[in-house]
Amino acid sequence: MQKSNSATDYRNELESRGTLPEGFSTGFTGLSFSPAELGADQKMEMNLSLLLLDESTSSFAGTFTKNLFPGAPVLLCRKRLENDSFRGIIINNKIANVCIETGVDDSEKIINTAAEEIGCGPDQLMSSSTGVIGWRLPVSDMIKAVPEAVKAAKDDNHRNAVTLSERIMTTDSFPKLRSRTLAGGRITAVAKGAGMIEPNMATMLCFIMTDLDISREALREMLPGVVAETFNRISVDSDQSTSDMVIAASTNKIACPDIKEFRDALYDVCSELAEDIVRNGEGTSHVIRVCVDGAASVEDACAIGKALVNSPLVKTAVAGNDPNVGRFASSIGDYCGNNGINLPAEKMEMKLGGEIIFSGGVFRMTPDKELRLVAYLKDCGTIPEHKGWPVHEKTVNIDINIGMGNSQSIILGSDLTHEYVRENADYRT
Amino acid sequence: MQKSNSATDYRNELESRGTLPEGFSTGFTGLSFSPAELGADQKMEMNLSLLLLDESTSSFAGTFTKNLFPGAPVLLCRKRLENDSFRGIIINNKIANVCIETGVDDSEKIINTAAEEIGCGPDQLMSSSTGVIGWRLPVSDMIKAVPEAVKAAKDDNHRNAVTLSERIMTTDSFPKLRSRTLAGGRITAVAKGAGMIEPNMATMLCFIMTDLDISREALREMLPGVVAETFNRISVDSDQSTSDMVIAASTNKIACPDIKEFRDALYDVCSELAEDIVRNGEGTSHVIRVCVDGAASVEDACAIGKALVNSPLVKTAVAGNDPNVGRFASSIGDYCGNNGINLPAEKMEMKLGGEIIFSGGVFRMTPDKELRLVAYLKDCGTIPEHKGWPVHEKTVNIDINIGMGNSQSIILGSDLTHEYVRENADYRT
Repeated sequence: MQKSNSATDYRNELESRGTLPEGFSTGFTGLSFSPAELGADQKMEMNLSLLLLDESTSSFAGTFTKNLFPGAPVLLCRKRLENDSFRGIIINNKIANVCIETGVDDSEKIINTAAEEIGCGPDQLMSSSTGVIGWRLPVSDMIKAVPEAVKAAKDDNHRNAVTLSERIMTTDSFPKLRSRTLAGGRITAVAKGAGMIEPNMATMLCFIMTDLDISREALREMLPGVVAETFNRISVDSDQSTSDMVIAASTNKIACPDIKEFRDALYDVCSELAEDIVRNGEGTSHVIRVCVDGAASVEDACAIGKALVNSPLVKTAVAGNDPNVGRFASSIGDYCGNNGINLPAEKMEMKLGGEIIFSGGVFRMTPDKELRLVAYLKDCGTIPEHKGWPVHEKTVNIDINIGMGNSQSIILGSDLTHEYVRENADYRT
Repeated sequence: MQKSNSATDYRNELESRGTLPEGFSTGFTGLSFSPAELGADQKMEMNLSLLLLDESTSSFAGTFTKNLFPGAPVLLCRKRLENDSFRGIIINNKIANVCIETGVDDSEKIINTAAEEIGCGPDQLMSSSTGVIGWRLPVSDMIKAVPEAVKAAKDDNHRNAVTLSERIMTTDSFPKLRSRTLAGGRITAVAKGAGMIEPNMATMLCFIMTDLDISREALREMLPGVVAETFNRISVDSDQSTSDMVIAASTNKIACPDIKEFRDALYDVCSELAEDIVRNGEGTSHVIRVCVDGAASVEDACAIGKALVNSPLVKTAVAGNDPNVGRFASSIGDYCGNNGINLPAEKMEMKLGGEIIFSGGVFRMTPDKELRLVAYLKDCGTIPEHKGWPVHEKTVNIDINIGMGNSQSIILGSDLTHEYVRENADYRT
């Protein structure tokens, strides 16, 4: 991850990454509204963003949350994936449009207005919403605002994705944008998300744009695997949202030299965005990087890594720079003991910051090691302030070999700080 | 749950509950030690407690953690359960004795010394340890202290379990003791535990004493079921410890009129202790009581209830008195969607504080209801201070009917507050 020393540095860095691939444009507007569930005296501001392709494409793909109560946009996008043709996606923050009587209708009304303004079929457009679950979208206010977003996208001369990365934010503390170039073409992707994050299919919201020529079939075969290896291996707070989606589309304008190279570039972009999301997690001070090796399967390795990074006692110990290694081992023993993984304790080796803390069935701590590990944890964390850019690129490295096989997985998680509680005890006010 | 207005009130209440059943006594001592893992300049205080039966009994039973890295006392107690005869258990706080090279040997040395002083076989004694995971017991210091605890138990004239309930505490903010009388006999039980709590077999530590005549077989058949319906249905922080155990023993001195009545009394004692543990959870301000009904199985009902009370976003919303009902539904959708429970959203009904917040597949919120629910949550919580007694007996009631069957379960959980983070970010210092 790149290190920036100021919001200006970081913004410059994003600008250099953010060039839109050929054939994409973005447009934005804002609106003021009162959530029906709170009453007319409560005012909020919503961003409306449009990601538009100059021409329709059949090369598009998507993955979505497995949450059983998905938002209306997820229901709608899943259906749109069956269509032959995609032209763009309209995105709002503040309200997620989940389990509302009129939810799908509301999203369709907004899409219909946008389609009319763009001059395309409503079936060619998707929508995406994040924010409070359980509130209704301010549909009429949004419909009034749509034409301005469409006009802005049509007039887009900037052709840079930085504004998109900023306008889709909710509790995010900094925008997340990554890109790779390949043979004159590029993959540019933005993501949002900071809380309610343990994706298990797709992340929060991620929009991947490319001009590299890739078929619909290849993209659809590739995307779930890349998502499984990147966004599905992070956790901020073990909650999978109702609205998670990754949408990818290509304008196919630039010849793609090699499908393997394309996949590698896509993996890099998604992997970096996944780390950005954890680093920007609500209240995150330490990013925890758990490498589980020697597992019987990748699934086991992922599950054990997630059990560790999701343990509140591990998360708070790391937040407090406390190498309370007993909690690390206990969280693994808890998961394995309750899920039929018969891990023999004497085969497990665990390292923190490269130092062995557990091997041969027993803990390996000494007063000197304790002091070194406290210093290591202190060095890997910062008091999280919403500076608008990632303030460090360090990770707390926990390496575990469980001696049961040859499968491996790397899971990223975050610590649990007062700032997380502060943000989430009063999220909506 | 009884309401006390002061530590004195609560202590008086405990005294009235705490009479030891016939044939039990308790003895205590303390010791000062330096954990080997921290070095000689760090001093800590440990309590050593002995629960002793006047004569050995064959009527004893136990259930233990499913954590794959259990403490040495758990390994040792599991073996002792196979024996015919039980005389008592020696208990320490501060260090849990988990995954230490000499762990079982250490526990056995302490037991051997106690057996010699008591005049019984070492096979008739168990041991129980809680505290930091990964540290070694100060064996020689403990061996020196054992005779005093044995002498105190032999001299015990108080015959009350209140001191036992106090001396086994670690981060507990108040002692936990419950009892029932039946036909001139009684069941008296004490428990400890405040963090690393999502028992799935037994809780932290719980010692159940009775003088009612019950056979070894009946007790062993009954205990797992009662534990499954009480301690296994609570969660403070979703972490199951390495040291959880419930040990029950009877002196068989009083005729038991009815096995069903005995089970009911045992259930009541365990159920009240389970609620005490959640109410005393680290940083707990609100106790959340989720009743899941209409499930296809009790297992599903338990799992859905636990998914809700373990969601950090639900826990922080409740801590902040924020009826962010979208998070409640999302946590259930997350669990069901990822665990093959095909709950139809339109069949689910969810209530908070008796008010419908979700039905027919959609949220049912209005500005008025929002205000009422904020007031309800405020009324159900308190700023947790370590007052030494439970400061209220209220619960935040969430009632869910998922319309898939006839099974039901009640799960108790706690909110997630700054105090939880404060206690756990710096537990060992």
